[in-house]
Amino acid sequence: MKLMIRVVHKVWLDRGGKAFGDGPCNLLKGIDKSGSLRQAAGNMGMSYSKAWRLLQTMEKRLGFTLIERKIGGSSGGGSQITSKARTFMRRYEKFRAEVKELTERAYQKHFRSLRK
Amino acid sequence: MKLMIRVVHKVWLDRGGKAFGDGPCNLLKGIDKSGSLRQAAGNMGMSYSKAWRLLQTMEKRLGFTLIERKIGGSSGGGSQITSKARTFMRRYEKFRAEVKELTERAYQKHFRSLRK
Repeated sequence: MKLMIRVVHKVWLDRGGKAFGDGPCNLLKGIDKSGSLRQAAGNMGMSYSKAWRLLQTMEKRLGFTLIERKIGGSSGGGSQITSKARTFMRRYEKFRAEVKELTERAYQKHFRSLRK
Repeated sequence: MKLMIRVVHKVWLDRGGKAFGDGPCNLLKGIDKSGSLRQAAGNMGMSYSKAWRLLQTMEKRLGFTLIERKIGGSSGGGSQITSKARTFMRRYEKFRAEVKELTERAYQKHFRSLRK
């Protein structure tokens, strides 16, 4: 079977360097689900220290806090994302999905007649 | 002055590997203007052999010829892009411009209220 030409796209936010993108978004989502930075990083095949440094960099560039330490309680601590991080993550997910759809649609529009 | 968060995006076409993108598009455009692969590559800071290999790879993946050798004549030869390459390049330029605008618009839509 002959392969179709397909469009690939990448999108991210920048503020004096990469400030947010798919990696940080998926990491925040994992923390929100698991309540643990260590577990969320592990599920993405990322070391705890790399995930921690990534979030530190994103926080610095975005200018707001993304995760907080959850102290004590029956679960014995962990991490949780801030409400601002949750809002930002959800906006980014909607934005990312929309860009994906618009890019695909633009490709169909401009290249449809050249497809084999 | 505080930096604004801005959106960055990259787009390319794939068919079992990168089949077309900004680099090949700009290279074809340069060949079309100068009539010379060597000159077009040089203007992009690319070696002749790298530019040649790039076009060979794109041709193989796209499945059609992009440039032809222009033999003899008063200008003493050189390279010219095929009419199919010209059509493809123009479509890609329109597609790329549209994706850029749509991405920017989607960013404004989803993140406007979070901008500082």
